Amino acid sequence: MDIARFYNLLENKLSFMITSHVSPDGDSIGSVLALTLALLKNEKKAVPVIKDDIPRKYKFLPGTELIEKDISETFDVIIVLDCGDIERLGFDRQLKEYGPIVVNIDHHKSNSYFGDLNLVDTTASSVGEMIYRLLDGRVELDYDIALNLYTSIITDTGSIKYSNTTPLSIRILADLVDKGVRPDYVSRQVFEMRSPASIKLLKSVLSTLEISADGKVATLYITQEMLKTANADEDDTDGMINYAREIEGVEVAAIFRETDDSVIKVGLRSNEWVDVSMIAAKFNGGGHPRAAGCQVKLPLKEAREIVLKAINHAMEDSGERRN
Amino acid sequence: MDIARFYNLLENKLSFMITSHVSPDGDSIGSVLALTLALLKNEKKAVPVIKDDIPRKYKFLPGTELIEKDISETFDVIIVLDCGDIERLGFDRQLKEYGPIVVNIDHHKSNSYFGDLNLVDTTASSVGEMIYRLLDGRVELDYDIALNLYTSIITDTGSIKYSNTTPLSIRILADLVDKGVRPDYVSRQVFEMRSPASIKLLKSVLSTLEISADGKVATLYITQEMLKTANADEDDTDGMINYAREIEGVEVAAIFRETDDSVIKVGLRSNEWVDVSMIAAKFNGGGHPRAAGCQVKLPLKEAREIVLKAINHAMEDSGERRN
Repeated sequence: MDIARFYNLLENKLSFMITSHVSPDGDSIGSVLALTLALLKNEKKAVPVIKDDIPRKYKFLPGTELIEKDISETFDVIIVLDCGDIERLGFDRQLKEYGPIVVNIDHHKSNSYFGDLNLVDTTASSVGEMIYRLLDGRVELDYDIALNLYTSIITDTGSIKYSNTTPLSIRILADLVDKGVRPDYVSRQVFEMRSPASIKLLKSVLSTLEISADGKVATLYITQEMLKTANADEDDTDGMINYAREIEGVEVAAIFRETDDSVIKVGLRSNEWVDVSMIAAKFNGGGHPRAAGCQVKLPLKEAREIVLKAINHAMEDSGERRN
Repeated sequence: MDIARFYNLLENKLSFMITSHVSPDGDSIGSVLALTLALLKNEKKAVPVIKDDIPRKYKFLPGTELIEKDISETFDVIIVLDCGDIERLGFDRQLKEYGPIVVNIDHHKSNSYFGDLNLVDTTASSVGEMIYRLLDGRVELDYDIALNLYTSIITDTGSIKYSNTTPLSIRILADLVDKGVRPDYVSRQVFEMRSPASIKLLKSVLSTLEISADGKVATLYITQEMLKTANADEDDTDGMINYAREIEGVEVAAIFRETDDSVIKVGLRSNEWVDVSMIAAKFNGGGHPRAAGCQVKLPLKEAREIVLKAINHAMEDSGERRN
């Protein structure tokens, strides 16, 4: 069984690279750091590698200073977290060039089982929850590990607001608070650190709201010009899609973000019945049924048109299956 | 002991009025309805009374249709929930005219112990949590009761984001999810039902943002004119104070809302160290250290000046004590 083999590796191997997807989020960073710190505690060599910038708001997590962006060493074991598709790791070389054994720990339905060992649990709220379940009782979960795991679970469940929230994930949060995590402190770092620039940006983004499909689809967009005027950066755009998703009657929300290299990043969310990971997949993106994303290499206007068409198509399809 | 006397009353008395404060919120409505439904289940007469309108977003709670605004009957027992001060109930007559025994169940530090029986627990996140602890194991908590209690706890802890969140309150939420409550459903009703009008209002409210005291105080305001232009109502203003509270470096946030009867309603929040209930108390208001409110009978401009002065005063005082 893969779990027993996983424990075997943790016990008998000496060096580990722990990595996750580009565009890192609270779950990927928190679970990478929690597992890294647990391995270091057990006197293993462990290096966290994420091939992208760490968003400002996650810099409070213990261990972020250990994260490497580039790596030339090799390891006994490569552990990949929260990543359904090996392409999303952003490595130039084959993963096997960094080490002979690849462990894949994930909760995405779309996971391609790329590992030598695959621990995939699509019922887990987050990979942080999976790491808690794997480590609890085997490693002493100290405050630093607990803080990383709490942040993983709280970001992937939207502070227990999303449909992936289970009684088990909530109870794990309580256990982590027992270990000294302060819920208000984490929430303030992760959900509530607004800059005056982000308030200015929010005002202009809300002006782009468009509602279509009888009120069931809501879209927003962010241009480079808007970012410049508000003196805001990519980090400040985080979570803005929720203003579209939260409108009464809306099923699918999309946000279109102009990047500086003529690609539009598209965020997709749904509330009840449309599987937005299927829409993202049409543009080589991915994610979960209620939260997904993709990139489109077109000017903003065309990108919006083509994605909106795919959304309407998916709504009709889901609507038919729903009846 | 008051708890034993409380169970004695539930057992032996026949008719109950359950009431709470005006400007009802998720905790007051949810706990009033949960206790009402539990009493009805035990074949008692139970009437929930709230002398104010129930906000639109709480209409999904099972039992809201039972809530009375005016009452002329008398009861064996009057149970007052989530109310530190008997004046905030909004009754014209003395409470004793409705029944001979008054039970006071609350979690406010400022509670005046006005009951014949006082169950006051300032460590409880919410009165919903207290009702859960009182009823669990004695009444079968069915889905309708669980939904009311979950909503109580989730609103008063801001979905486990506020500093009153404890491991116990989180575990109770998990127990309530076990009883069938869907976290995403409740969150959508309580936190996420935005109307297009509220988005329009939000844009104009964000334009009123003012930051003072070296970035530690942030204020917003809402005029009747702004409500009219956005075609929004009082319900749409809910939660807007958080945009001020969540700005990096801000300790105290205030929102000033013009009502149609020349009174300014003031909402106050703090993040770490200022007790805003003390500021509210200066204007005959009240609340908790991190969330409080009051009313000022002055034009908007003067109301902002006088409250801002009190905030600055409180900041200096707290700052001194803090050093």
